[in-house]
Amino acid sequence: MEMIQLAKEAKKASIILASTATERKNLALKLIADYLMNHIDEIVKENEEDIRRSMEENLPEPLVKRLKFDRKKILDTVEGIKSLISLPDPVGKKLLATELDEGLTLYRVSCPIGVIGVIFESRPDALVQISTLCLKSGNAVLLKGGREAIRTNRILTELIQKATLEADIPQGWISLLESRDDVNQMLKLDKYIDLIIPRGSNEFVRYIMENSRIPVLGHADGICHCYVDSDADIKMAVDIVNDAKTQYVAVCNATETLLVHSAIASRFLPELKRKLDESNVELRGCERTQRIIEVKPASEEDWRTEYLDYILSVKIVDSIDEAIEHINTYGSGHTDAIITDNRGHAEKFMDLVDSGNVFWNCSTRFSDGFRYGFGAEVGISTSKIHARGPVGLDGLTIYKYKLIGKGHIVADYAEHRRTFKHRPLPLD
Amino acid sequence: MEMIQLAKEAKKASIILASTATERKNLALKLIADYLMNHIDEIVKENEEDIRRSMEENLPEPLVKRLKFDRKKILDTVEGIKSLISLPDPVGKKLLATELDEGLTLYRVSCPIGVIGVIFESRPDALVQISTLCLKSGNAVLLKGGREAIRTNRILTELIQKATLEADIPQGWISLLESRDDVNQMLKLDKYIDLIIPRGSNEFVRYIMENSRIPVLGHADGICHCYVDSDADIKMAVDIVNDAKTQYVAVCNATETLLVHSAIASRFLPELKRKLDESNVELRGCERTQRIIEVKPASEEDWRTEYLDYILSVKIVDSIDEAIEHINTYGSGHTDAIITDNRGHAEKFMDLVDSGNVFWNCSTRFSDGFRYGFGAEVGISTSKIHARGPVGLDGLTIYKYKLIGKGHIVADYAEHRRTFKHRPLPLD
Repeated sequence: MEMIQLAKEAKKASIILASTATERKNLALKLIADYLMNHIDEIVKENEEDIRRSMEENLPEPLVKRLKFDRKKILDTVEGIKSLISLPDPVGKKLLATELDEGLTLYRVSCPIGVIGVIFESRPDALVQISTLCLKSGNAVLLKGGREAIRTNRILTELIQKATLEADIPQGWISLLESRDDVNQMLKLDKYIDLIIPRGSNEFVRYIMENSRIPVLGHADGICHCYVDSDADIKMAVDIVNDAKTQYVAVCNATETLLVHSAIASRFLPELKRKLDESNVELRGCERTQRIIEVKPASEEDWRTEYLDYILSVKIVDSIDEAIEHINTYGSGHTDAIITDNRGHAEKFMDLVDSGNVFWNCSTRFSDGFRYGFGAEVGISTSKIHARGPVGLDGLTIYKYKLIGKGHIVADYAEHRRTFKHRPLPLD
Repeated sequence: MEMIQLAKEAKKASIILASTATERKNLALKLIADYLMNHIDEIVKENEEDIRRSMEENLPEPLVKRLKFDRKKILDTVEGIKSLISLPDPVGKKLLATELDEGLTLYRVSCPIGVIGVIFESRPDALVQISTLCLKSGNAVLLKGGREAIRTNRILTELIQKATLEADIPQGWISLLESRDDVNQMLKLDKYIDLIIPRGSNEFVRYIMENSRIPVLGHADGICHCYVDSDADIKMAVDIVNDAKTQYVAVCNATETLLVHSAIASRFLPELKRKLDESNVELRGCERTQRIIEVKPASEEDWRTEYLDYILSVKIVDSIDEAIEHINTYGSGHTDAIITDNRGHAEKFMDLVDSGNVFWNCSTRFSDGFRYGFGAEVGISTSKIHARGPVGLDGLTIYKYKLIGKGHIVADYAEHRRTFKHRPLPLD
């Protein structure tokens, strides 16, 4: 089928899905889990075929690694679906209720966004994860995967289609786009797609953000900072920076740049270096840092770089204001932490740093939907509208207003025969 | 100053404005009201000059009409500012609080979006209204007005700048862009502008939406429907459709298309026509409508047209499903109403019509921030993300996460020395 036709089908299905009962959606999720388990050998076989071909074609090793969808990963994915079933339905929640006048009642009710476009490189677990999140939140989904994962993506989509059809979810709610045209086709479907969720490398996400008018939920870079204030506890600061840098380097919430107040630098930096040397972290420092510890020189480019590696850039600043300005200039609005015993400094930092997540005396690595207790994570957003920071299921919903009257007309109010009461009603 | 420089200044000011106390923002609003009142004669004089020049240049009459900012309008605008002062501050609200673990507490706190771009045709009250809404919600604002209103816009911006500077609001929080380049310059400032609010004709808004990657808050068209169901009370239906069409025709929430169930059409339509004839409403009907009442024929184009005039297109449908499908195909996602005594039909309609406002037994004209009790209206949004329907001050805010620990690191949880509690805390 043509891409445009699939998009129209998705739009149509999304209308029905928006009012599908929670029980039916959960049944469909259970059936998806069953189908994946019952066809686990076939999935693994198709995936191995994708891997074999990709290696033959000499695709880059990290890409081939991300492509892998073995029994362990499938079992993890199925576990994820089961915990998704247990989450409350984000749709149909009464968010506001007001009696505008006698017999005229306004409700703000959560509802799905509509059609979500998912664009992902390799990693087939993203396909299952995002489409089940869409299903739970009543959204239709158009998937565009990489060519390298084509066989895996096909069998996964087919299994999800079969499972959900068995639960009477309207056909067409999920489709895999396979047009030979590249991803740009999808980015133009703004008439049918309400939101795009890209999953992949930062270059990939940045490309999508820069080439579509459809709103994008996600983040390109995670250039996170720790700022060690003049009033920091040195041991705590060493532990936090060490965790933020080395606990897992390949993730968006790992710290990439350390800012240190000049009043504490000469005591703190040698302690930190001793700790980071244990993990062989490469340090790149500003000129003043170079005078205190042995580091490579940092260039302007370092302040803008997401290493995703055992590398940390270090800059000494003379005030908290300089730290905040540095973060707001070079950061990516993702996650930034201050380490200090001074409440006033901490509050200033959290107020003035313009990032989705601002932390006081804890590691930037906590910035995550599961750690926040959201139960499922759609992604981490650095957008300034709709959803920011780790996004749970709620991020896939919006709301509509329902106004229920008994023949009410505006003329009665415009001509002062009636007046509005605007009495807030309790939300049940 | 260069446009890009003004944008940078706005970004910088927005950081400070984000943590400015409510009292200071309210003081600034009061001073704006005072400045406008104290310079009312000068404003009127500048505005008259704009009008004189525009008439000389033979600009279209509706545009010149919208341009008018006389004493009465200035007084109304000042009243609006005073009621804005009395509204609660939308910034700094605790939206979620969770104890992740002992001594590690997460807060979701509302905050401003950042820099709002406002693009408006003529109407100078839009300048004052939107910029005071931005100030109250802690956002910086870049204004781009029409050349026809240049003198009015200049004096208004200057007065607002002086008033807010007196209240120590950072300079640069508001700027008027006057570059000779057209509006397209501003649409490209996505690095500095987080949201655009366009005010003007629907062609104008549509142009903006289609030519910027910056998110747009607003609506191009208001193609609103009334659907008179088979189970409708005929007198109620006549009153509601009459109000929805004629109470004020030039607005986005006026009804443009009437859908009537075939089972009630022959009884309802003659009654309706009698009523609408009193206001000389021109009716354009489908073929079946033409057999019941005397109407002009409606073309496919009519279903897509926002008349903003005493014109109503009429179509007979054979089921509620056909009505819903028509609305989801030709509507603009703004406001649609069903008139029926059947609760099941009403609920189906409100669930399946994909619009920001879905009404049962009341006029589409109620779709409005003031009538909803929001106290101030940023605009009506037909977007599917961030804010939908009438948008109050809250629509100019987003949130950030603040996480406060005591030296917490992720390694302790990853290595199972500690586990998350995720205990919800009361919101004060």
